[in-house]
Amino acid sequence: MPLKSIILIGAGNVAHHLGPQFQKSGLEILQVFSRKITKARRLAKTLKSEAINDLSKLSSSADLYVLAVHDGAIPLVAQQLPKEVREKKLVVHTSGATPSTVFKSICKRYGIFYPLQTFSIKRKVDFSSIPICTHANRKSDRQALQVLGQQLSNSSFEINDAQRAILHVAAVFVNNFSNHLFSIGAELCEKEQIPFQLLLPLILETATKVQKHPPAKMQTGPALRGDLTTLNKHLDYLQRYPEYEKLYRQLSKNINPKLPL
Amino acid sequence: MPLKSIILIGAGNVAHHLGPQFQKSGLEILQVFSRKITKARRLAKTLKSEAINDLSKLSSSADLYVLAVHDGAIPLVAQQLPKEVREKKLVVHTSGATPSTVFKSICKRYGIFYPLQTFSIKRKVDFSSIPICTHANRKSDRQALQVLGQQLSNSSFEINDAQRAILHVAAVFVNNFSNHLFSIGAELCEKEQIPFQLLLPLILETATKVQKHPPAKMQTGPALRGDLTTLNKHLDYLQRYPEYEKLYRQLSKNINPKLPL
Repeated sequence: MPLKSIILIGAGNVAHHLGPQFQKSGLEILQVFSRKITKARRLAKTLKSEAINDLSKLSSSADLYVLAVHDGAIPLVAQQLPKEVREKKLVVHTSGATPSTVFKSICKRYGIFYPLQTFSIKRKVDFSSIPICTHANRKSDRQALQVLGQQLSNSSFEINDAQRAILHVAAVFVNNFSNHLFSIGAELCEKEQIPFQLLLPLILETATKVQKHPPAKMQTGPALRGDLTTLNKHLDYLQRYPEYEKLYRQLSKNINPKLPL
Repeated sequence: MPLKSIILIGAGNVAHHLGPQFQKSGLEILQVFSRKITKARRLAKTLKSEAINDLSKLSSSADLYVLAVHDGAIPLVAQQLPKEVREKKLVVHTSGATPSTVFKSICKRYGIFYPLQTFSIKRKVDFSSIPICTHANRKSDRQALQVLGQQLSNSSFEINDAQRAILHVAAVFVNNFSNHLFSIGAELCEKEQIPFQLLLPLILETATKVQKHPPAKMQTGPALRGDLTTLNKHLDYLQRYPEYEKLYRQLSKNINPKLPL
């Protein structure tokens, strides 16, 4: 049975991006819950939905309950869902870091609807290219979530808890950590009055290259070449930033374990 | 005086990208040198130029001599340039890692023409968006190289040796090191039979975000949030990859120095 109506629990970044996509795909958003009624109202308005800030007012008539709240709040909110919802309705969260089994002793039908992307309220993203990772404890719900994922995106994957946990580790490396490296680049430039914009095309090309080629095959640079002259120059310069020097040394050794660093 | 004719010394990646751009901008490529005549011929053919593999056959009549060779070869090649070239002509290299002063005791007029991008022979790049960093020991040559840079690209910068050295360190962080993080992501996925393509939109979005926003302000993730539950889960999982565990710990601490890791 296709999922036709949704209640959004949470009105943050993820809910702000998911809500309009659900609506575009023809689903009805019955209610939007947030502890802060102004936040609930802001999102509910764009979705032509009802805003609530009291979980006891939650309707039991939706097909799907989407918890787009922070990881720590998932079990607390789930426990406060009306009994009828917990016993009869499909309840999912949108987190990459929390297993679906967080719901195990709370809800009968539970799962995951995890859009693998980094969201900012301000930036629009092309949702059709965002991979959706779904999972559910029941087979019929797994199928329904896959159908829903395919309505929102060109790539929807059934990913179990163990795989998703690892996917999340990998996402931290490619997103959070690479963004941190971009920050280091920006900081080094700024300290020396070099415009960071000089590095922006390089950043974009590095990310674009790996869209079609395995990153391991795209590796370049002094560490890979074993170019000790350059490496030592860089390490000398980085002495004024001990943390970055340590990082430079370690990343270079990871890239080329033969380096005598 | 604008530079009108060029001799390309080297027929690798950088020469293959620069050559056609020089030509598009109306410059004549008089000769292409490579130790391997087949390589010289391949590039010379597309540039309708002469291929040579003997530096003694180098013409002295070009306005600019571009050494697009690897860092270690720059002084060796420079020393073998004909005396007339070394005494009268402008000689530049295309490296981000080598100071212009590598030419100091060899050539009278020397400088840098460094396109700040990562090149693969196979991939075409939009040259107009590539920053060109130029420098020269003489003021008139600095101006001529800036004019040439502006003919090839929308962003051409006069960058001195000290600044360029730091820019190169920053480039290693944002390009070589972030590509390595992408490799780690790919490896973790592969080991667990998760399609790496799931992470590709995230990689592209991370790089796209920083085109308009400072990366430090775009930082997200468990380290920044101080989410120890997630961090410890990730570190537990990474115990099977001691190098990646170490890297995860260090990058997380860099992002959030207050973390008790």
